[in-house]
Amino acid sequence: MYLTQSIHRAVQQGPDAPSTIFGDRVRTAAESADRISRLAGALKLLGVQTGDRVAMLALNSDRYHEYLLATWWAGAAVVPLNIRWAPTEILFSLHDSGAHMLLVDDAFAPVVPSLEEALDTVVYCGDGAVPEGMLGYEQLIAAAEPVEDVRAGGDTLAGIFYTGGTTGFPKGVMLSHSNLRVSATGGQAHAGLAVPDGRMLHAAPMFHLADLAVWTAQHLVGGSHVIIPAFEPIAVMKAIETHRVTSLLLVPVMIQMLVDHPDMAKHDLSSCHSVLYGASSIAEAVLKRAMNAFPNAGFVQAYGMTEVAPIATLLTAQDHAEGHLRSAGRAAAHSEIRIAAPDGTDAPVGTVGEVLVRGGHVMLGYWNNPADTSDALRGGWYHTGDGAYMDENGYLYIADRLKDMIVSGGENIYSAEVENAVAQHPAVATCAVIGVPDERFGERVHAVVVLRQGFAATAEEIRGHTKTLIAGYKAPRSVEFTDALPLSGAGKILKRELRKRYSRANGLIDD
Amino acid sequence: MYLTQSIHRAVQQGPDAPSTIFGDRVRTAAESADRISRLAGALKLLGVQTGDRVAMLALNSDRYHEYLLATWWAGAAVVPLNIRWAPTEILFSLHDSGAHMLLVDDAFAPVVPSLEEALDTVVYCGDGAVPEGMLGYEQLIAAAEPVEDVRAGGDTLAGIFYTGGTTGFPKGVMLSHSNLRVSATGGQAHAGLAVPDGRMLHAAPMFHLADLAVWTAQHLVGGSHVIIPAFEPIAVMKAIETHRVTSLLLVPVMIQMLVDHPDMAKHDLSSCHSVLYGASSIAEAVLKRAMNAFPNAGFVQAYGMTEVAPIATLLTAQDHAEGHLRSAGRAAAHSEIRIAAPDGTDAPVGTVGEVLVRGGHVMLGYWNNPADTSDALRGGWYHTGDGAYMDENGYLYIADRLKDMIVSGGENIYSAEVENAVAQHPAVATCAVIGVPDERFGERVHAVVVLRQGFAATAEEIRGHTKTLIAGYKAPRSVEFTDALPLSGAGKILKRELRKRYSRANGLIDD
Repeated sequence: MYLTQSIHRAVQQGPDAPSTIFGDRVRTAAESADRISRLAGALKLLGVQTGDRVAMLALNSDRYHEYLLATWWAGAAVVPLNIRWAPTEILFSLHDSGAHMLLVDDAFAPVVPSLEEALDTVVYCGDGAVPEGMLGYEQLIAAAEPVEDVRAGGDTLAGIFYTGGTTGFPKGVMLSHSNLRVSATGGQAHAGLAVPDGRMLHAAPMFHLADLAVWTAQHLVGGSHVIIPAFEPIAVMKAIETHRVTSLLLVPVMIQMLVDHPDMAKHDLSSCHSVLYGASSIAEAVLKRAMNAFPNAGFVQAYGMTEVAPIATLLTAQDHAEGHLRSAGRAAAHSEIRIAAPDGTDAPVGTVGEVLVRGGHVMLGYWNNPADTSDALRGGWYHTGDGAYMDENGYLYIADRLKDMIVSGGENIYSAEVENAVAQHPAVATCAVIGVPDERFGERVHAVVVLRQGFAATAEEIRGHTKTLIAGYKAPRSVEFTDALPLSGAGKILKRELRKRYSRANGLIDD
Repeated sequence: MYLTQSIHRAVQQGPDAPSTIFGDRVRTAAESADRISRLAGALKLLGVQTGDRVAMLALNSDRYHEYLLATWWAGAAVVPLNIRWAPTEILFSLHDSGAHMLLVDDAFAPVVPSLEEALDTVVYCGDGAVPEGMLGYEQLIAAAEPVEDVRAGGDTLAGIFYTGGTTGFPKGVMLSHSNLRVSATGGQAHAGLAVPDGRMLHAAPMFHLADLAVWTAQHLVGGSHVIIPAFEPIAVMKAIETHRVTSLLLVPVMIQMLVDHPDMAKHDLSSCHSVLYGASSIAEAVLKRAMNAFPNAGFVQAYGMTEVAPIATLLTAQDHAEGHLRSAGRAAAHSEIRIAAPDGTDAPVGTVGEVLVRGGHVMLGYWNNPADTSDALRGGWYHTGDGAYMDENGYLYIADRLKDMIVSGGENIYSAEVENAVAQHPAVATCAVIGVPDERFGERVHAVVVLRQGFAATAEEIRGHTKTLIAGYKAPRSVEFTDALPLSGAGKILKRELRKRYSRANGLIDD
């Protein structure tokens, strides 16, 4: 169970087949393997030892692909950094992980001066002139001799993946080779995330586990990786059409942008066989439009998180066909889940409790953080902090992050339920529901709404519409309109940002 | 990665769905889980400790299924015994593994007196009266309280699987939970061996890794196990038709018996979605007839052995459609293979060498046999002892067991090639080719042939026909006709038996 295994298979089974396609640059399997073994050689010459951490801060490219595999080939661990982070957060991750080498592209080379205190070596993997003080990626590959694959695998640390999630200070999630392979293989076995010898489009950021999951799944069954620097609707549609892409991962906000795009119908998306989505909930109406836009694709939803590498549950194409669109799916082939009541026993069917996950995909722990590790993994289960209930057939329904749950007038209110209702108003493009301080009720349901272009609605209309769908006490007591919601690198809505904004606007905090 | 995980998922995702179907006896997932947890409780009461070995000697049944899972639930390891073996071989396996508890059914209860010296406890899992000196399986389940699942997994020993293979003295292959799951998940991810929520027919013996592989694959994705005591053509066809079986494993000799059966066309086999076959080579003509007989099934060939739990390569349905029928497939998603020249380097494309296998599915080792273990696993690769070559796209072509290779007049002759040619004679049902002593050539190619019912052919006709297909020096110099070939429990032709028979018939040995 070593992640470089797929390279050896690719060379054996089709040395001349494309491995990566990035713009006009196509690398065959043989060429890609040669470059990876040379880059691994360069890393070793630069002093990278077995178990060392090597970081990258870059948009998507074929070099991101090579960086991941070369680091493993050399027996080291990857630290893919979140491209949305501020320099302070990046610096924290570098210090915390002890990565002294950083690869940066053109987009992030300007950040390097603010990170230098943590770094011994900076490798520039852009296409321009190598900046002063950095080493050139292509020059390193050209100069180094290929080395043998260390074939590190099993429980060996494959990477540290920093997750601020939506809750603040980054934690370094340690994932082993086995963790990543178990999740990807289980997902593939369960729901066919990748087509054997197919083409996977990487439009979501490659630093994130969501895209890494489908990347690994495609590696398992052979095929090519079509890579674009970042998500952009036209670029996605063109890449699918040009390269006959068979599978891709999208987060809900990307799906929304695609189906809202006026050019959607002009592009031939018929080659797409499977679309994986996840990381946050999606409005049913948007999902249905997306399913129409990709006529030949099975849609699969994944629920999970970095700590489970990342797939916990899957809602298969079959589940979609059977109408379970509100569910986050059932325990995936490699995964066991249960819903724990506050006293730790199994919550009854239909009752919200905390989602616990168990299996070979659960992280080794948090880097340098034994206290949080033992808390998160107590009793042999990973404690997600997510509230959800399960129906009698094991379908999971996410209610909320437990810390996002709203307690209003003594009632527990789960924002996902309210958001689903608000999103059904025809004028609503997307929304987020948070609890805000309220003198009378303790907390009050507050909705932050982005309207669809060309549509209008008042707060009262949205509130009235919502009340036709859910109990009155759950309907938002206040509605705020905005142009866009703050998103994490993975496309998750940052509710803590919304709470801060609200507090600032209402004079509750000063900063 | 614990093999009992699937039970928890099955109860969560469909407690009332059938888990096992054995004749008229149907057990739901909830009922099956309850019985397994009680049987595990009974094993513990009987003194089975974590890591102990528990053996079973029985035809297929729903109790075989329960035995496997209950043993793991209790934290112990299974020792499924070969039903074709003589009492001396069984006794050897019991002594060697240290299993002091044996489960037997009606077919094997009569053997127990000859095994008693090795045993503390014998559990009778037939449907008649419990024989003197044995404990009743149903009585144990009825009397025991359910216990918690130990959830042993990962590198924990899951079972010792004795393999005489075709080469003599049994060796105990130690497989971990992880080994078995890696192979089954990889096979499922690569080629879809089981249909999610489908029905898997167990007609091949359940003690054998070939059937255990598809059993595990079906567990991974949920569904039911339809079990018949043993392979019999009519029983297979009826089970498929009655229970709308979606997948099954067959060894080539079973496929041959099915397609040769006069009632084949009378049964509706349209529910079958996938047919996995393997364990030995199959004549192309037979395979084509089988593909017609199962109109909706994708055929998948697996090549492997107990030591790799058991899948090394897969020839997918797509590969079949593309005409690669002679190949044993390509390295499976979880597996790395290479062909080693005698000096240990990679053999060039098209050149026969030894097949080596690497990955998380490679056994822990041979039980009580560190010398054979380190020899078989030297350099981090499992050495199969099989001769094969690979083409430029990674397709593997098995030439022979290296020890079955015939050296005649200084030429290496691979029996598979000769067998393929002989089998193309229209009168030949099946055949085996061995080397026999020859004064002039050292060894001489000798064919043992079973004719199709109602057909006739002379040795000279077969020899003449073969020469039209392969080089003259490879054609059999002698041909012997027989009614049936000696087969191992897994349906492999026992060439050492054929060589013994020849030697006896020709006065070369006395025994």
